[in-house]
Amino acid sequence: MASLEFFYDFVSPYSYLASTRVEALAARTGATLHWRPFLLGGVLKATGNRAPIETVAKGKHMWIDLTRWANRLEVPLRRPTTFPFSPILALRAALAAAPADLPRATHAVYRAAWADGRDIGDPVVLASILGEAGLDGPALVAAAPAQKERLAAQTQEAVDRGTYGAPTFFVGSDLFVGNDRLDFVEEALVRAR
Amino acid sequence: MASLEFFYDFVSPYSYLASTRVEALAARTGATLHWRPFLLGGVLKATGNRAPIETVAKGKHMWIDLTRWANRLEVPLRRPTTFPFSPILALRAALAAAPADLPRATHAVYRAAWADGRDIGDPVVLASILGEAGLDGPALVAAAPAQKERLAAQTQEAVDRGTYGAPTFFVGSDLFVGNDRLDFVEEALVRAR
Repeated sequence: MASLEFFYDFVSPYSYLASTRVEALAARTGATLHWRPFLLGGVLKATGNRAPIETVAKGKHMWIDLTRWANRLEVPLRRPTTFPFSPILALRAALAAAPADLPRATHAVYRAAWADGRDIGDPVVLASILGEAGLDGPALVAAAPAQKERLAAQTQEAVDRGTYGAPTFFVGSDLFVGNDRLDFVEEALVRAR
Repeated sequence: MASLEFFYDFVSPYSYLASTRVEALAARTGATLHWRPFLLGGVLKATGNRAPIETVAKGKHMWIDLTRWANRLEVPLRRPTTFPFSPILALRAALAAAPADLPRATHAVYRAAWADGRDIGDPVVLASILGEAGLDGPALVAAAPAQKERLAAQTQEAVDRGTYGAPTFFVGSDLFVGNDRLDFVEEALVRAR
């Protein structure tokens, strides 16, 4: 059975887009999906790559491009009041969830940040978001700090395996970077069946 | 009749990929295609954006990504011996061609640089490449210097209209950046019919 690893950061809107369709993709191809939160900021720092918004014209156009994608995928997208925001607490809290709860935690945080305009960096808000998704929000927020090293290790692993951005996908050792490469991911998974 | 402007640089492999399919796209959508050589280096300088190869991990992965695209599009792709190379002479020589000859000149130079491993920066080689395509190679190479300002002006125009990379497409004032956005370009052209 083929395996698909999905490395994502809540601050990455293209990872949000990818999060809305990786499960259907895995189901279509019979692949096992692995949700792997990581820190895009750490990836950029380690590789010397830059976020789109660090180039003014690119950052400006990014919102147009994201709107095109959201329309195509028919997913809600609202530009956050503050961007970039810190995803660290939410990433650590998500990692604190039981593996079976990670997809639910991930969807809840992405929706809050990218569709509902909520401040996922605020511990109280984050606990509510996770609670509304049926998880123990306060417990996950309280457990977040203990996930610091695991989040850093997943980030470093992705860098060591060759990535430079988000979302990052691996099919075995084959690397794919970007929501716009999910069609190549799907072809690789079909071949791997 | 909808109009599609295609801004491209010979040094950009993603522009090469796009050059192999813009005509079919324009034909499918009934759009008028405008071939517009520009200088990616000038765009990067003006916007502060960086080429993929300026980030080591991104540059390394680019060749894998390009190979996936070349396989999908079924177009030849050979990594140039020297990269990046200077596209300036070839861009100016292409601009010196009559408008009706520009597509032919463009395809000939792209094929030479990205499929046949030829040095398009060498005036003698470039004259041969254009000559083999049925154009007056020596005359175009001789006329190249006089196109300096026109090439710079097209580059500046693209920057002023919001781009930051190559290939760049415009459907009216709508900007699209990247070979991987040609599906959005096609949707825009269908809507514009």
